[in-house]
Amino acid sequence: MGYKVLNWSELATDPINKLSLEIVKEGLEASNPYLSVLQTLSKVSKQIEKYSNIVVIGFGKASYNMALACEESLIERISGGAIIVPHGSVKSSALKKIEVLEGTHPVPTELNVRSVRKVLSYVEQLSKKDLVVCLVSGGGSALFTLPAEGITLRDKQEMTRILLAAGPTIQEINCIRKHISAVKGGQLAKLIYPAHVLSLILSDVVGDDPSSIASGPTAPDPTTFKEVLNVFERYQILENVPNNILNRTHLGLEGRVAETPKPNDKIFENVTNMVVANNMKALTSMAKKAESAGLKAMILTSYLEGEAREVGKVIAAIAKQIVREHLPLKPPCSVFFGGETTVTLRGKGRGGRNQEVALSTLIAIKGLQNVKFVSFGSDGVDGNSDAAGAIVDGTTFQRALEKGLYPNKYLEDNDSNTFFKQVGGLIITGPTGTNVNDLSFLIVLP
Amino acid sequence: MGYKVLNWSELATDPINKLSLEIVKEGLEASNPYLSVLQTLSKVSKQIEKYSNIVVIGFGKASYNMALACEESLIERISGGAIIVPHGSVKSSALKKIEVLEGTHPVPTELNVRSVRKVLSYVEQLSKKDLVVCLVSGGGSALFTLPAEGITLRDKQEMTRILLAAGPTIQEINCIRKHISAVKGGQLAKLIYPAHVLSLILSDVVGDDPSSIASGPTAPDPTTFKEVLNVFERYQILENVPNNILNRTHLGLEGRVAETPKPNDKIFENVTNMVVANNMKALTSMAKKAESAGLKAMILTSYLEGEAREVGKVIAAIAKQIVREHLPLKPPCSVFFGGETTVTLRGKGRGGRNQEVALSTLIAIKGLQNVKFVSFGSDGVDGNSDAAGAIVDGTTFQRALEKGLYPNKYLEDNDSNTFFKQVGGLIITGPTGTNVNDLSFLIVLP
Repeated sequence: MGYKVLNWSELATDPINKLSLEIVKEGLEASNPYLSVLQTLSKVSKQIEKYSNIVVIGFGKASYNMALACEESLIERISGGAIIVPHGSVKSSALKKIEVLEGTHPVPTELNVRSVRKVLSYVEQLSKKDLVVCLVSGGGSALFTLPAEGITLRDKQEMTRILLAAGPTIQEINCIRKHISAVKGGQLAKLIYPAHVLSLILSDVVGDDPSSIASGPTAPDPTTFKEVLNVFERYQILENVPNNILNRTHLGLEGRVAETPKPNDKIFENVTNMVVANNMKALTSMAKKAESAGLKAMILTSYLEGEAREVGKVIAAIAKQIVREHLPLKPPCSVFFGGETTVTLRGKGRGGRNQEVALSTLIAIKGLQNVKFVSFGSDGVDGNSDAAGAIVDGTTFQRALEKGLYPNKYLEDNDSNTFFKQVGGLIITGPTGTNVNDLSFLIVLP
Repeated sequence: MGYKVLNWSELATDPINKLSLEIVKEGLEASNPYLSVLQTLSKVSKQIEKYSNIVVIGFGKASYNMALACEESLIERISGGAIIVPHGSVKSSALKKIEVLEGTHPVPTELNVRSVRKVLSYVEQLSKKDLVVCLVSGGGSALFTLPAEGITLRDKQEMTRILLAAGPTIQEINCIRKHISAVKGGQLAKLIYPAHVLSLILSDVVGDDPSSIASGPTAPDPTTFKEVLNVFERYQILENVPNNILNRTHLGLEGRVAETPKPNDKIFENVTNMVVANNMKALTSMAKKAESAGLKAMILTSYLEGEAREVGKVIAAIAKQIVREHLPLKPPCSVFFGGETTVTLRGKGRGGRNQEVALSTLIAIKGLQNVKFVSFGSDGVDGNSDAAGAIVDGTTFQRALEKGLYPNKYLEDNDSNTFFKQVGGLIITGPTGTNVNDLSFLIVLP
């Protein structure tokens, strides 16, 4: 069914812990790929009822559960299709009409290229009376790999290596990726045209830019071959770029190979990109849950970034202000944060971004009454641990000391999971089959 | 007069820059020591009108300007007094009745001890009909140094060295400081008793705990000699502690030297500790100014901590949420932050906490329309630069690139001041004579 019931650790006796975990559950339900696709298809049912032939394609970690929802609501009208999932991630398929193909992740191989060709075989001969539902989720960029004509997989890999060493922005990397691919940067939409496209996107990209998620196969690409050359020059890597890629760039500059489709291209009249779930949707559901329990709720950001241990200090600073100044909210209240922090490894412990934010926060809220903080990864897998995240409060520090554990020592060693295993507070959900990044919240009571 | 007019750089043409700088000015006025003491004395004038003999003492970087305000409002009733300022900081005094003494800062010397004895000579023979106004500000802990009986200045210095190497918390350090001092941890209040004390405190401590500011000479001390010993044992430094300090600790444990005065001590019936200015007061004035200009205003925290470059990312994450989701506020709006971030030096550039937060923020808000961010030190001196801070927006990144400057490179080298000198945006106030920590804010327009 694609929906996982949560498997909590021993925390659920305290009523605020209980509420906290209900809020976590709400966040996971709101980002559940199966439920999200079901809801979205029901919302657009009027607009798509005219299509009697529907083809479903997809790529990404959540595409199997998203495909299940498509068959659930559209089975009669689906003529076929195929999705690409990470190798080994779907043991046996319950899908009746949609084929399950595999690809390697995160490094694409010939397996991926074969799978992409198979997917394309379903959509290339369609008419404007047909609809392609395209399921996009995290990991899709690697799984949906098909180099442009004249480019080899080896060229792409070499290019990736050179780019990572040079350190361009993610926008610059995407610009190049799209121009050496046969399907990215809106080119899939072009191949499908004149059939219509409904892309259902589960976003694991902060900000949800459709041209960034899986390198935007059905979204217009405003970038050009000119910018590809600019990036090569800006980072002084022109001489290292593989010949095939350099040749293609020059052909592109001379107009001898086609540009990626631009925003004003007529093909996009037939394309609808819809985000079915993202960080903000999860935060909104969680905030509603908090409100229904009588807490004021504020969504502070869904763009959270920064080193986990430092982000924890800022979150604690907000908690202190609420406790001591009743600003920006008066308790009982809650503040929600979403996004993706970073952990720069210093030690060799076990843990992840969410547990490390929680560990840093508990140190900074030491002794503060009536404050809870929860942080968890929506995918259920935080770093190299088997937990999704952790729940902490102003008493956690003292409880740790009483067990002879020094929180700062565990933070120094990136060993948050080992810490919480001993002190309590781990949130364990198992892999949730979704990914809308990390979700966290403060609760402050009067 | 103690009040400094701001000396802006070339930014004031853009109307939002202009408003931003007016908000900065508001923050500086609200934390001005002279004005703050004047306002407070006028507020308590009824309560102190019964005292015909007032002695003014003080210590800290702002004590001269605070003393000027005392003479301004109480001159007729002041019989005398003395303040301790950093060596060389007051060239010529306009004070008529209050003596200006000097001490070294941050490392106390015999000069400080002589000055403290002189200050005490003004307050030790008073009666319960007299009032001592005690002016406390940043730097006061070092300036107001008088070791307890049997302890030498050398012992104190050695103890400080050992503590810094062992890495206890600031609370633990203060516990020890108070128990090896003759005046800290409420002991000054005890020496003044039965005369009454009105302590006017300019707080540079996040959270304003009166027992922390200048080690709380007129505030009760809940810590004990037992805890001193606990700290020595916890950090395994018992064998390194100077003999005189160990002896005093044991005498204290045996009740043979007096504990610091505890919260229920009757001497505190005669003591009033008032914070005349702090970070929150400055933020509140700034937020009011923003509101009067038509911006919604939210004070998010006055407890901001964390590595400057990471804090900048979190501030940018909040800006993005406002621009894209209109949450937690709808533009036009402003969000205020106060506290003290940290800079871990990696490079060898010129800059400070505030300029580095601003540099990190401008990188993360690159391209974002209608966002301004300002961060500045209320003391007017950010790090090793001659600026107080900087103002940035979504166009600063592009302006830097056009000048051939890569913002990330300057951030990497802790060279924020050099960056802003070339790109523009420095806020230069000169030393302001106050310190209520750092102040910063976002403005987002529709």
